[in-house]
Amino acid sequence: MLENAPNREDIIQAHELVKPYIHRTPIFTSAFLNERTGSRLYFKCENLQKIGAFKARGGLNAVLTLTEEQRKNGVATHSSGNHAQAIAYAAAMVGAKAYIVMPDNSPLVKIKAVEGYGAAITFCKNTPEERERTVAEIVAKTGATFIHPFNNYEVMTGQATTAKELIEDVSGHLDVIIAPVGGGGLLSGTALSARYFSPGTQVFAGEPEGAADAILSFRSGKIEKAPYVKTIADGLLTYLGDKTFPVIKEHVTDILTVSDEEIVDAMRFLWERMKLVVEPSGAVSLAAVLKNRAIFERKTVGIIISGGNVDLGKLPF
Amino acid sequence: MLENAPNREDIIQAHELVKPYIHRTPIFTSAFLNERTGSRLYFKCENLQKIGAFKARGGLNAVLTLTEEQRKNGVATHSSGNHAQAIAYAAAMVGAKAYIVMPDNSPLVKIKAVEGYGAAITFCKNTPEERERTVAEIVAKTGATFIHPFNNYEVMTGQATTAKELIEDVSGHLDVIIAPVGGGGLLSGTALSARYFSPGTQVFAGEPEGAADAILSFRSGKIEKAPYVKTIADGLLTYLGDKTFPVIKEHVTDILTVSDEEIVDAMRFLWERMKLVVEPSGAVSLAAVLKNRAIFERKTVGIIISGGNVDLGKLPF
Repeated sequence: MLENAPNREDIIQAHELVKPYIHRTPIFTSAFLNERTGSRLYFKCENLQKIGAFKARGGLNAVLTLTEEQRKNGVATHSSGNHAQAIAYAAAMVGAKAYIVMPDNSPLVKIKAVEGYGAAITFCKNTPEERERTVAEIVAKTGATFIHPFNNYEVMTGQATTAKELIEDVSGHLDVIIAPVGGGGLLSGTALSARYFSPGTQVFAGEPEGAADAILSFRSGKIEKAPYVKTIADGLLTYLGDKTFPVIKEHVTDILTVSDEEIVDAMRFLWERMKLVVEPSGAVSLAAVLKNRAIFERKTVGIIISGGNVDLGKLPF
Repeated sequence: MLENAPNREDIIQAHELVKPYIHRTPIFTSAFLNERTGSRLYFKCENLQKIGAFKARGGLNAVLTLTEEQRKNGVATHSSGNHAQAIAYAAAMVGAKAYIVMPDNSPLVKIKAVEGYGAAITFCKNTPEERERTVAEIVAKTGATFIHPFNNYEVMTGQATTAKELIEDVSGHLDVIIAPVGGGGLLSGTALSARYFSPGTQVFAGEPEGAADAILSFRSGKIEKAPYVKTIADGLLTYLGDKTFPVIKEHVTDILTVSDEEIVDAMRFLWERMKLVVEPSGAVSLAAVLKNRAIFERKTVGIIISGGNVDLGKLPF
């Protein structure tokens, strides 16, 4: 086991801590998709989670494990996506102040959602440098604790509770769990939960071809950036961190890439057949299963549907 | 009680009969919508039912209660919508032949779904007369049993199992259950289940303004047609039948009409906030609750989401 990575007890404690504030999301099956893939698929529906994504778990665990002193000064992060809502929601649950830096081109629906939890939003230009500079200023001024969207052990431990529930709620052994990979918070947490709570279960990742940094890093053994970044799966654009990558390197079986067309096809199955609103990133795992029949056939497969936050005005159908 | 209407024991038996072939669909809640309405809302998600709609229940009960002799000759119906799939699915479950008459302008996705269950499809022009003539021909030739989409006691009894589950699965008393009304199969079944399994629970209906026959009939005391038919809720275009209307007249508290704009707004909440793919007809009940705060405020309300079969290429967002 990696020295600093979360251990079994950490994940159990995190689960108890976040439970009052999250949904134990349902696990759905589809006779149609089982037939189509020749597998037994169990979909863990984190699109039905609070804030519409698994990120609520990591945000909550990070906020709930702060000291009294830290909590008083609030929390800060930069994100245009689900992590912004997660931190705003988690802070609201404990009555802490949340400072969220958002790019000035963020969709109005996401801004409204963050505002709805009472967070203070600061807008900045949409470059990594501007985001980081802006959040650093806020942290310097307020003493708020910065919570990274994935390269943070409390966040990783919170995300690990997704696979823990999946393992507990599927009766019988899972041969495989597959999760999408962006920065690797969910994937590393999934890998740890599989190792601790279901030894023998392999963990795979799905990654967009248009943000294929994790597969490169996995093959080369060091953190790499994607050769190009262009994908509909806007939740998976980031590259791995120095906390998530070692866990992934050690405990993940393989990373499978999929094209945007394959992602949209998988989305369509989830929407049409399972009646679930799933965002592109949330359909990447299924896309990888549909593409690689030889790997998953005749296996029992847990598929993590990571989120459902889409702009209904901009659907790819 | 109405003399011929299904009794308590009929509904209990129907439930046992259909259980092996249906999902016990989940009941979801939304903190956002509870706050918005000032009510405690419980959503019975029949969009997650087999074939994507509650109609699976009525179709199954009608097919499963046939005699051996009847079953041998198969079943027939005309429908361009969810009832076609329900009968095709039910027949496939018992190995009976299904003859489905569909208008020749039916969406390809619906034709494919019916074909997928192995039913024999006959196309005809999309007029009520042509549909009825075509199905009568098939019945005369094959001896198949015609199963009406709503004006049929076995269908009504099957649909009643939706509200029975809702009542069983919500802990505590429901002040109200609200269902959409088209031909009245679901509404009459809901009213009967409320009466038998949760006395004191009021039953309301939501109806599109652009197919407002049920409210007219309810007020005048006899079956009326809508003054005009034009609504996005394409599952609710028909008028009441002589089996469904008497039950509705006696056991429904009131019928509330909503505009297409209100239906689309309610759909948007269900898609965006609850991540559920719901068809327009399935959002009518919520639309009525959102429109009539005075009626539902501070009440515990069961809302039946009737189905989720939409053409993703033709969304109203």
